[in-house]
Amino acid sequence: MKIGLMGFGVVGRGVYEIVSKREDMQVTKVLCLEDISLPDAQAVKDFSKIVNDPEIDTVVEAMGGLHPAYDFVRAALEAGKNVVSSNKALVCTFYDELLPLVEKMGVKFRCTAAVGGGIGWLSELERSRRVQNIVQVGGIMNGTCNYILDNMTRFGLGYDEALRQAQALGYAEFNPSTDVDGIDTWHKVILSSNIAFGVSLDKDSVPVAGIRNISAADVENFKNHGLVCKLMATGRRENGVCSAYVQPTLVKAGALEAAVPMNFNLITFRGETSDQMSFYGQGAGRYPTAYNVVQDLVDVASGKGFYAPYGAGVQAANDEKMTYYVRGGWEGGVAETWPGAVLTQAVSVREMHAWLKEHPDAFAAAVV
Amino acid sequence: MKIGLMGFGVVGRGVYEIVSKREDMQVTKVLCLEDISLPDAQAVKDFSKIVNDPEIDTVVEAMGGLHPAYDFVRAALEAGKNVVSSNKALVCTFYDELLPLVEKMGVKFRCTAAVGGGIGWLSELERSRRVQNIVQVGGIMNGTCNYILDNMTRFGLGYDEALRQAQALGYAEFNPSTDVDGIDTWHKVILSSNIAFGVSLDKDSVPVAGIRNISAADVENFKNHGLVCKLMATGRRENGVCSAYVQPTLVKAGALEAAVPMNFNLITFRGETSDQMSFYGQGAGRYPTAYNVVQDLVDVASGKGFYAPYGAGVQAANDEKMTYYVRGGWEGGVAETWPGAVLTQAVSVREMHAWLKEHPDAFAAAVV
Repeated sequence: MKIGLMGFGVVGRGVYEIVSKREDMQVTKVLCLEDISLPDAQAVKDFSKIVNDPEIDTVVEAMGGLHPAYDFVRAALEAGKNVVSSNKALVCTFYDELLPLVEKMGVKFRCTAAVGGGIGWLSELERSRRVQNIVQVGGIMNGTCNYILDNMTRFGLGYDEALRQAQALGYAEFNPSTDVDGIDTWHKVILSSNIAFGVSLDKDSVPVAGIRNISAADVENFKNHGLVCKLMATGRRENGVCSAYVQPTLVKAGALEAAVPMNFNLITFRGETSDQMSFYGQGAGRYPTAYNVVQDLVDVASGKGFYAPYGAGVQAANDEKMTYYVRGGWEGGVAETWPGAVLTQAVSVREMHAWLKEHPDAFAAAVV
Repeated sequence: MKIGLMGFGVVGRGVYEIVSKREDMQVTKVLCLEDISLPDAQAVKDFSKIVNDPEIDTVVEAMGGLHPAYDFVRAALEAGKNVVSSNKALVCTFYDELLPLVEKMGVKFRCTAAVGGGIGWLSELERSRRVQNIVQVGGIMNGTCNYILDNMTRFGLGYDEALRQAQALGYAEFNPSTDVDGIDTWHKVILSSNIAFGVSLDKDSVPVAGIRNISAADVENFKNHGLVCKLMATGRRENGVCSAYVQPTLVKAGALEAAVPMNFNLITFRGETSDQMSFYGQGAGRYPTAYNVVQDLVDVASGKGFYAPYGAGVQAANDEKMTYYVRGGWEGGVAETWPGAVLTQAVSVREMHAWLKEHPDAFAAAVV
């Protein structure tokens, strides 16, 4: 297998290192805008040197961002090359463009590192689908949010202080919106649901609420009730009806999710036969992510393509009702009053997220 | 794929049910000593009807026990049939007989359900080995012990009472020795180590201490120090040296292992590249176990054999030193005295287990 590697940052360098120790594959060209020199591969600044190289059968996209990554991935697929990507934003955003193209071209496309980093999550969904229907996916899919919430819970830090710590340690970006507003988790649960259920979720029907508005007083409230707040994703398909959403969620202090420390992930699926299966590990980082990129390369070499057939477009209904903790102007039915906040009467996920859109300063967390 | 199913108990019936809904495989004969009649398969009482049936290419062993299960598995392999087993005692005990025979006959042999029930654990070790060396395996591998310890911790029950509850719910056998004395966990960690490291561990070099001697007073001691007791297995290979052992282990109350409830399992490997990956799910039960048996059948049909090459025989050294909580006559170095018990100075795993063999009424738990 001759590989064209696009991107030579955190993940790209890791992929290069791991592949260079293997005999069954070789990185022959690396797309990198800086001047670098590599012992085994040629560094190029022009993508056409990769897409027009007939020797290269497989392209690894480790650039991040939507453009030009998408344009390059598209061109590589159109040139009949297999593609492995770790870019959840790209695969989620252009799912309806990429998957039909992959099927039309008859090439292999994989993106295991896009969800869960080093966890073999998408590949396990693929394995599971061989024997059972999957009815639910989700969990803690973003290490940055978990790091912030874990530090607020353990040490009583305020949100700004916990965020600054995460930034200082490199767990959060200078502009943390993608993580703390739940966008990263949203990409991951949409992609996971598409694969688990064999559908293409309408992204506009999947609401997301992040952790930006949580305060130390909220965490104190949770602690006093034996609860821990986590940013959780849910994708579900029951009787043909899909639900999918991302929201802060309160779990019992002794629950498995509550014990997930630092920047770790805990991702779960429920199958009709196997019941609950959860996966814990590093959701990001050079080597865990590069590890799953190389796993994808091994699978592509052995003829494995995408995890599931490209499925029909569906809307997330989100009709299920739950109780929410809300701080900030809730005018609906109230079940309990807590200091500075309320527990609502049961309200549908759809209604609550519609309300949150109108109240951008409020904070809400589902009680499960 | 035409399947001969040996055993029609909890797991066997589950396998029959799942397979009967599939088009790519068919159970044609079922070995069962009771009189049953099945819509799609012929029930037989004589194993030779299966081993001599040229139509049957794959045999599922779901009988349990060592004999006649081993004799039948061996005969099936010698007849050139693929075998899928969920029997950890059988595969572990006869590893050195079965694996060379499988390689000699060129047939497929898999046993994913033997460790972790519904968790895709052995198959994930197999996947992981394609890209990295695994350096450690282990965790909570026995649901019965976890159920007993969890109830002692949560509700302050004594050991006998917790065991009786587990028996009443069907989580423990009338004779619970295989579970509570750690034998089941011992089989699982030896099998996992053999596959993860590509070795054949000398079973006599792998010590096991169970939970039979734990008391409510011990659990009270642990609680007062923010600790939780779990029966944990460890297999490790570092710089070519293997360690493997099973022992009660004290983890911090907030740790992921401490949050494993009821009869669930949490199994972990560490890889050189991916770092820690943990797997949580139902370690037993009809459908989770049958699910992984059928996964193995799908893999066998696609040409997949055993998870790793049969490797050289090795001894577990167990030289690593740790502190133990000991109740019952410890005469070695003492670091701390707790009510009715001591914390030892650092002592090697090998020495502690040798001492425990001489002191069958003592209880010891490693502090990690």
